[in-house]
Amino acid sequence: MTYGKIDELAINTIRTLAVDATFAANSGHPGAPMGMAPVAHVLFNKFMTFNPKNPDWPNRDRFVLSNCALMRAASCRAGESEMKLNLRGVMSWMKPCFSQLLRFSCVNFIIAGLFLTIPRSSAVNGHGCMLQYALLHLFGYALSMDDLKHFRQVDSITPGHPEAHDTPGIEVTTGPLGQGLSNAVGLAVAQAHTAAYFNKPGFDLINNYTYCFFGDGCAMEGIASEAASIAGHLQLGNLIAIYDDNHISIDGDIKCAFTEDVMARFEAYGWHTQWVQHGDTDLKGIEEAIAKAKEVKDKPSVIKLTTTIGFGSLLQGTGGVHGNALKADDIKQLKVKFGFDPEKTFVVPQEVYDLYHKHAAEGAAAEQEWNQLFEKYGSEYKELHDDFARRVTKALPEGWQNKLPTYKPTDPAVATRKLSESVLEAIYEVIPELVSGSADLTSSNNTRWKKAVDFQPPNLGIGNYAGRYMRYGVREHAMAAMMNGMSAYGTIIPAGGTFLNFVSYAAGAVRLSSLSHQRVIYVATHDSIGLGEDGPTHQPIETLAHFRALPNMMVWRPADGNETSAAYYMALTSKGTPSILALTRQNLPHLEGSTIEKAIKGGYVALEDKEANITLVSTGSEVSLCLEAVKTLKEKYNIKARVASLPCVEVFDAQSKEYRLSVIPDGIASMSVEVMSTLGWEKYSHEQFGLNRFGASGPYKDVYKKFEFTPEGIAKRAAATVEFYKDVKPLRSPINRAFLQLI
Amino acid sequence: MTYGKIDELAINTIRTLAVDATFAANSGHPGAPMGMAPVAHVLFNKFMTFNPKNPDWPNRDRFVLSNCALMRAASCRAGESEMKLNLRGVMSWMKPCFSQLLRFSCVNFIIAGLFLTIPRSSAVNGHGCMLQYALLHLFGYALSMDDLKHFRQVDSITPGHPEAHDTPGIEVTTGPLGQGLSNAVGLAVAQAHTAAYFNKPGFDLINNYTYCFFGDGCAMEGIASEAASIAGHLQLGNLIAIYDDNHISIDGDIKCAFTEDVMARFEAYGWHTQWVQHGDTDLKGIEEAIAKAKEVKDKPSVIKLTTTIGFGSLLQGTGGVHGNALKADDIKQLKVKFGFDPEKTFVVPQEVYDLYHKHAAEGAAAEQEWNQLFEKYGSEYKELHDDFARRVTKALPEGWQNKLPTYKPTDPAVATRKLSESVLEAIYEVIPELVSGSADLTSSNNTRWKKAVDFQPPNLGIGNYAGRYMRYGVREHAMAAMMNGMSAYGTIIPAGGTFLNFVSYAAGAVRLSSLSHQRVIYVATHDSIGLGEDGPTHQPIETLAHFRALPNMMVWRPADGNETSAAYYMALTSKGTPSILALTRQNLPHLEGSTIEKAIKGGYVALEDKEANITLVSTGSEVSLCLEAVKTLKEKYNIKARVASLPCVEVFDAQSKEYRLSVIPDGIASMSVEVMSTLGWEKYSHEQFGLNRFGASGPYKDVYKKFEFTPEGIAKRAAATVEFYKDVKPLRSPINRAFLQLI
Repeated sequence: MTYGKIDELAINTIRTLAVDATFAANSGHPGAPMGMAPVAHVLFNKFMTFNPKNPDWPNRDRFVLSNCALMRAASCRAGESEMKLNLRGVMSWMKPCFSQLLRFSCVNFIIAGLFLTIPRSSAVNGHGCMLQYALLHLFGYALSMDDLKHFRQVDSITPGHPEAHDTPGIEVTTGPLGQGLSNAVGLAVAQAHTAAYFNKPGFDLINNYTYCFFGDGCAMEGIASEAASIAGHLQLGNLIAIYDDNHISIDGDIKCAFTEDVMARFEAYGWHTQWVQHGDTDLKGIEEAIAKAKEVKDKPSVIKLTTTIGFGSLLQGTGGVHGNALKADDIKQLKVKFGFDPEKTFVVPQEVYDLYHKHAAEGAAAEQEWNQLFEKYGSEYKELHDDFARRVTKALPEGWQNKLPTYKPTDPAVATRKLSESVLEAIYEVIPELVSGSADLTSSNNTRWKKAVDFQPPNLGIGNYAGRYMRYGVREHAMAAMMNGMSAYGTIIPAGGTFLNFVSYAAGAVRLSSLSHQRVIYVATHDSIGLGEDGPTHQPIETLAHFRALPNMMVWRPADGNETSAAYYMALTSKGTPSILALTRQNLPHLEGSTIEKAIKGGYVALEDKEANITLVSTGSEVSLCLEAVKTLKEKYNIKARVASLPCVEVFDAQSKEYRLSVIPDGIASMSVEVMSTLGWEKYSHEQFGLNRFGASGPYKDVYKKFEFTPEGIAKRAAATVEFYKDVKPLRSPINRAFLQLI
Repeated sequence: MTYGKIDELAINTIRTLAVDATFAANSGHPGAPMGMAPVAHVLFNKFMTFNPKNPDWPNRDRFVLSNCALMRAASCRAGESEMKLNLRGVMSWMKPCFSQLLRFSCVNFIIAGLFLTIPRSSAVNGHGCMLQYALLHLFGYALSMDDLKHFRQVDSITPGHPEAHDTPGIEVTTGPLGQGLSNAVGLAVAQAHTAAYFNKPGFDLINNYTYCFFGDGCAMEGIASEAASIAGHLQLGNLIAIYDDNHISIDGDIKCAFTEDVMARFEAYGWHTQWVQHGDTDLKGIEEAIAKAKEVKDKPSVIKLTTTIGFGSLLQGTGGVHGNALKADDIKQLKVKFGFDPEKTFVVPQEVYDLYHKHAAEGAAAEQEWNQLFEKYGSEYKELHDDFARRVTKALPEGWQNKLPTYKPTDPAVATRKLSESVLEAIYEVIPELVSGSADLTSSNNTRWKKAVDFQPPNLGIGNYAGRYMRYGVREHAMAAMMNGMSAYGTIIPAGGTFLNFVSYAAGAVRLSSLSHQRVIYVATHDSIGLGEDGPTHQPIETLAHFRALPNMMVWRPADGNETSAAYYMALTSKGTPSILALTRQNLPHLEGSTIEKAIKGGYVALEDKEANITLVSTGSEVSLCLEAVKTLKEKYNIKARVASLPCVEVFDAQSKEYRLSVIPDGIASMSVEVMSTLGWEKYSHEQFGLNRFGASGPYKDVYKKFEFTPEGIAKRAAATVEFYKDVKPLRSPINRAFLQLI
């Protein structure tokens, strides 16, 4: 088709809005919006189908502004109540205990408070975020001109970076460089899987595309390389990326650090590549390239678009327009050049609104059609219809939790990584949205149920797109970011495995799982020096402290079978909180005192003794050691001890103070026992026994012995603790604090 | 040249040693050594120059078994005493105070204990580490046959993964996948820089090559992609990598996750590529390919070597030989096939020893020649000669510390990132081995001194190889791993910048800086919500807790100019401990009580009051807030307070208990104030005021106000703390513990 004045006017409207907003805030990144406005105009107005009045429509086209945000569901707003630990779920295990309910409701409130704060943080890297805001406003999402005028002010809905939960039309949070492209790969995986699973002859229910803009910064990041490599392997024809080839990064001309042939690299990954040389002006060329990319069904596509950063500015094509607002005189000449009144700001010609609102109306009509198709689908495929309808609400099937394995103390000792496998084996049929996987450690992470089919391009002969097992390869960081995208698509709950120590490789994306409230499950095996021979590069010391310090993350370290089931229960039912399950390589006995009901409180009394002189507070593989140490303490030191198991401190923190004090009471000393960094355990104990050094290589029992993680080593320190605190009056539980933390 | 029986015998000796050792340990990875033995034989015996009797020789060829270890300097062994915080240096600031000296000496002992433990942990990923051990033994490094027989046993010098400090001949620790190739790029950068800096006509002093073996696992990791991209940009002709193309990873055939064209990707990065199709047998082809790679001076080279994992085993070419010892009958048939006695284990034919010892003797002779050349160099270029000789001892030039800037309270307020720039500006001339850089945030990190020359290939016209400023690009993870390699080379102290929040992208390599005792400096700016508008994806919350939990890492968060100078003093003089300098974007006043001498103790009294009811313990930008809060406390609550500044808790922990109690005394309450996660602050305070949620986007003063980080917000909580603890007797300082931690 042909382009004319109105298109130019629309594009320059986006540019001037970006300029005015960054100038008003005296902060922000005008350059990218000015350079990418033309492709954004063509893509949104000619290719993308979406309904600004219902950004939740499941078959909408997805858009990711990598190192910026992704168009999405305003529902995140309504979704607040989902953005907390599933305490209702906890309650369902506690019907008998009504007084608990009340306490939970008020805890609920605090938690809601906790997560209500987090949307403020669902932020993304600034590059081009005004492009995002301008488009949302112009197409008619619930984002007003006043909102644009309050760009980057505290508590505005147009913060320094788009924040999914406060800004309708922002899909999920991306943020740090490279994340967006990887999220887009996850969204495309989810689309391919959902289509293969639900579509039927005559019912092309799910056929949306995922579009992504990325720049040189993303292209340099390793996470983006990982994601691009697996996208090529997976032959994701539903993914179309636009590479903003503007030659500028923060250090100036990319010539100083980035001279590779990016398109040749993407070809090596198996992508289809094109180049539009005049991205600032060649609207027809842009349209033809995107149309061609849509025809390529068996490969992801990338279009290299050569643009001028800050197009129109006196500083265009320089780093000067990257991260700073334009000067007043520059803005004047730019507006004159674009035919705008240099004296006016935040101007949108009515015909531009009309153009975009017309397209928005077409999107609304498309959703209507789809709704009728979906209803018809329901009459022919009721079960699938109801399954799909349920998934998008994030609710799990009725009674699924009855499938969770439970254990008796007399059951044989098993490694928690194997117990995790038993959970997956038990629930995969009742939770069809669960998609497992591993970063090339399947046989070590035990993440694959026996009958699992791999998610693979059919032509490789080793799986299909309806498959529910992901082979991420040795790509921990991309795995995490892809899972964020898969979760954001709305029809999948992703679980991915690696060694706990290598979850750190994915730290950048794990942080965004928390920021963006994705229900992502990290199956993190080989959780301590208990992995033995592989030695210190594989033995986590700092890892749990790291992720316990991360807001909105549940870090689970179960001690046995019932606690492992409890961890999965909370991970699957907490709709807005990701989880890390730290699991052992070595076998552990099943505890006398453990039940799922107790463990889902995050902490409970594993061994009670009303006359105890000390509480041993422990997690995972050390809980059973503490129970043995109780005997040693009695025999050798005549000291009575009780044991508290704290598989998840974040969930324990969400319980009532009264309950927490019943687990770690006033009046007696307490000592934590966990075979890694003690950092943070002072919050739950008076003294800490841990490992504040790197581990050692050898058979694991020898390694535990070397560091005195034995009943005797624990008892010796517990006795010293009792002695040390015997004269302190009053001896308060560490649960008692002088003031509440800000949450 | 031609190859015969003796070469085959040597290769099969390496293979059978790997098989016997893994069988004896019933653990380990025999597959890779069996497949890579031929190329190892050709490379070590025909191309590499090294002296097993002095692995310290500066011009030795370097070898990296990526995701395994790197040949090196046994000196690490002797190097133990360097592997601790520079307390001698601390003392040099304290000559007057002799009693301190004594305390330090005993702290010294504890610290030495701390770091003596760490070599056990300088581990690396197991793939092929028996190849390493076998080669070390056969060439005559101080690694005996008995050591091979104790493979993977606690306290052996042949642990599950090579450990630099206990195993002579292991250069530095690599470990997790992708690190080794990135370290190799760093070693090649260091070689290119050192050669450009020191070589003179007739004195080709530094001309070694860096060789690296890597496999599919490394090739999939993003960090390796980042490193390969910048290696191509930097045109590192001194780097030769061998890609072990064996088609197998832990999940089996790489067809399930990794079908890209790896060589085409490396060509896109600007590498020279070759393919040797019959890597198991074609020794001549291997030799020709390496010879050709050495001729290519303007590009790094990669040789794709198609091999059979577990060559000779009944399970060859399958995942079955990747991570498990061979079965007895398999070993029997393999030994028969290789012409070895199936009944004997750990057999080395004398002619194999003779062959390798002959090459080792040639290496010793080469070092002799070099020593004479270096001596002659000294007569013509005395200054450079002495500079080089000094650098390899890791000692800094006499009196360099007198260049460190000092400040008075009346000096204008400055951001600590700018104060860091002032330090670099002040010392770059006196410390020529200091090589700074940034991951594309130069203007934000302030890491570049005005007269800095970029390290670049001369033909780009924007720098040269003698340049001391690195443009790492947006590649945080590769930057960190490259700095580990640059530090390991022995003639450079690398400092690299990014935002504190994005140091997390590099967590995998940062951990290895600590494990392998590299003197690497992370310049981490924008350290808190104080960065303002950029918002929560950029505002660290969990980051400092993460790295404080990491053993052998100094985390500095200076409060002003003198503390910033102190941070650099300790970072530069602690030869075996890396540092993270967390620096502000916003301006901070200079403290009344601060001096370099006090700050290098890691913690000190910033404001004393003998009658105080509470100690406020703080870091960085919150220290001056606490000093204001002291006034508010007096005026509004009639409470007297004192303030302790703790810029580095790890260094503070190394001080005597008496000193630490003088900073955080018994008898009064204490409260920590740091505008991020409170995790871990219980160790230094009774109560904690922090931010256990994500931040917010806005002008930074508004953000601080929103979270009550104001004199009033601090005072209110301090008053609650005093009230809460007034009845506790005895009220002990948190410095008092019931027992010592394992270190």
